[in-house]
Amino acid sequence: MTAVEGVQRTLEVALGERSYPILIGTGLVGRPDLLTPYLAGQQVMVVTNETIAPLYLARLCDGLPDDLEVRTVVLPDGEQYKTIEQVERIWNALLEAGFNRRCTLIALGGGVIGDMVGYAAAAYQRGVAFIQVPTTLLSQVDSSVGGKTGVNHPLGKNMIGAFWQPKAVLVDIGTLTTLPARELSAGLAEVIKYGFIRDETFLAWLEANMAALRRVEPEVIAEAIARSCLIKADIVAEDETEQGVRALLNLGHTFGHAIEAHQGYGNWLHGEAVGAGMAMAATLSQALGWISTEDCERSLALIESADLPVHAPAGMSSDDFLARMRLDKKNIDTRLRLVLLEALGSACVSDAVPPDQLTSLLDRYPRR
Amino acid sequence: MTAVEGVQRTLEVALGERSYPILIGTGLVGRPDLLTPYLAGQQVMVVTNETIAPLYLARLCDGLPDDLEVRTVVLPDGEQYKTIEQVERIWNALLEAGFNRRCTLIALGGGVIGDMVGYAAAAYQRGVAFIQVPTTLLSQVDSSVGGKTGVNHPLGKNMIGAFWQPKAVLVDIGTLTTLPARELSAGLAEVIKYGFIRDETFLAWLEANMAALRRVEPEVIAEAIARSCLIKADIVAEDETEQGVRALLNLGHTFGHAIEAHQGYGNWLHGEAVGAGMAMAATLSQALGWISTEDCERSLALIESADLPVHAPAGMSSDDFLARMRLDKKNIDTRLRLVLLEALGSACVSDAVPPDQLTSLLDRYPRR
Repeated sequence: MTAVEGVQRTLEVALGERSYPILIGTGLVGRPDLLTPYLAGQQVMVVTNETIAPLYLARLCDGLPDDLEVRTVVLPDGEQYKTIEQVERIWNALLEAGFNRRCTLIALGGGVIGDMVGYAAAAYQRGVAFIQVPTTLLSQVDSSVGGKTGVNHPLGKNMIGAFWQPKAVLVDIGTLTTLPARELSAGLAEVIKYGFIRDETFLAWLEANMAALRRVEPEVIAEAIARSCLIKADIVAEDETEQGVRALLNLGHTFGHAIEAHQGYGNWLHGEAVGAGMAMAATLSQALGWISTEDCERSLALIESADLPVHAPAGMSSDDFLARMRLDKKNIDTRLRLVLLEALGSACVSDAVPPDQLTSLLDRYPRR
Repeated sequence: MTAVEGVQRTLEVALGERSYPILIGTGLVGRPDLLTPYLAGQQVMVVTNETIAPLYLARLCDGLPDDLEVRTVVLPDGEQYKTIEQVERIWNALLEAGFNRRCTLIALGGGVIGDMVGYAAAAYQRGVAFIQVPTTLLSQVDSSVGGKTGVNHPLGKNMIGAFWQPKAVLVDIGTLTTLPARELSAGLAEVIKYGFIRDETFLAWLEANMAALRRVEPEVIAEAIARSCLIKADIVAEDETEQGVRALLNLGHTFGHAIEAHQGYGNWLHGEAVGAGMAMAATLSQALGWISTEDCERSLALIESADLPVHAPAGMSSDDFLARMRLDKKNIDTRLRLVLLEALGSACVSDAVPPDQLTSLLDRYPRR
């Protein structure tokens, strides 16, 4: 607990000169004392989407000091708009406003907004400051930490981007009260992921608290966000540019990205695809004899308890999966690399899964 | 001198774990022994333009080991094609070929190709390896060192990009024999710039050797390239991301970028605009009383001896200049910052030029 009113947790992501704080609490949007210490200069561009703008944009802007030059950009909402064209709209707005290298971008929205604004900041004049104000559970536990920014390409997710760290992240739990239940579940997929890859105690805590999480009880949600961010921050601090251990954060994502790309971005939510992808990774881990049948069933039950899918999409063939998975960024040369479970609470990266075993799993995995 | 055949000079750009060598010599394109140590994996994408492709693309590709997967992209030639759309063509080709994070991009061409390929590499899968094979004098002395990559925007030059270092730079002086005289002069503008900002001895050497340089005498050209790269490498090593001293490399560029943008990219060559811009900077330095009339005249004479313009474009008003200069990346908040001469061989950055004195210089500066 810190002494700052309304702030329930403060974490530090330790990355040397690129370190930054994550403030977690209620009523943080619109608090000028929390935002202004992290502005690089007098020019501020707030970028949000059409869903979030009517809810929080005015509140955020009203909380900025009067002597700043504040502009806003409102983009369409949805993963299908996570494109270089939308990022160009941000660049155009910056250039039309004559914003220089000491401007600051503020990303107000979910992961799509955070990734695009972060990338816009990384590339504008070869790099300017940005601040994340994530308004979905998924972005609060995932894109707040790690500095991964970017956009999708018709041939693959997040194929264009940069590693670019924010100056600060403001997590206002109050924004979750306006989040649809389906999006809350999608965020819980990433929360569950942190338990799977590093922390069996946290997994047990999630089993015990899933109902409270789905009711968005503030203390329980704050705890889940803080623990998730801490696990991710630890991993990112070890491996900022994803050369090694950071790949573990991709549990469920190799299958999940294939599902999203095949279904067309925005039809399955990212978290839903990750939920199904984690179920597939657990099932493959069990088929390889790495985890027990009981642990596999416990994993699928936890994913389902968050109201997430554990099946693959109807009509998506094994070849559809493999074609997309070959484009995965973790692959080295032409070898597929997968994140799997050695145990509940312990993930590993493997490039040694026999291709026929993978194909056989994909062939017989339940569709719906 | 190193012991490697054909390599006349080897420099090291010292940037910690991002350090890389610059090899300068004759007949280096097509030498597999020089290129292969710097490839990240088995996938190689060579990007060049329509002018260079018939001259050197086959030679470069033939020199790559047979067991690599080599693809090529040929883009249109010219500064007007230094756009995000052309970079997207590179990304599309990489994705269509299924290239992963361990691929290597090779930039074969001038500064436009180098900047675009570097940026394509910086953003592809959040960063892959690239190698520069610059084929113009300008790119050999300028874009080989420093890691600045990017593209133009209709509202400003190099507004979108990244700092991204190559794994190696191969400077083949033989490529200058096919370079048009006008492009050679444009390259000499940057060579002269290094003398102006840091090295009066080099300035005097350039005055003595200008005729030999314009005849592309190999030993003289190799010396000029090596000394230019050394000065730039020193400055970049001090200030990789342009927070301070690196701004000196922008001598002539604030005026020059305004000229290029106003005239439409590609009409004035970058080096021609920089030549005129340095003449304007020298003239302003003299008007401020920082350098003598004789030194100013000596500066203009050296620029002219390289067959470069020392006048501003006909029909470009002072307001045209100022509107473009306000977008310059060196500016802090709304203050214009200019690189000027304290003496020949010593440049400085100033934000203290009285606006009316700048306007008055611009009003009365010769046009043609």
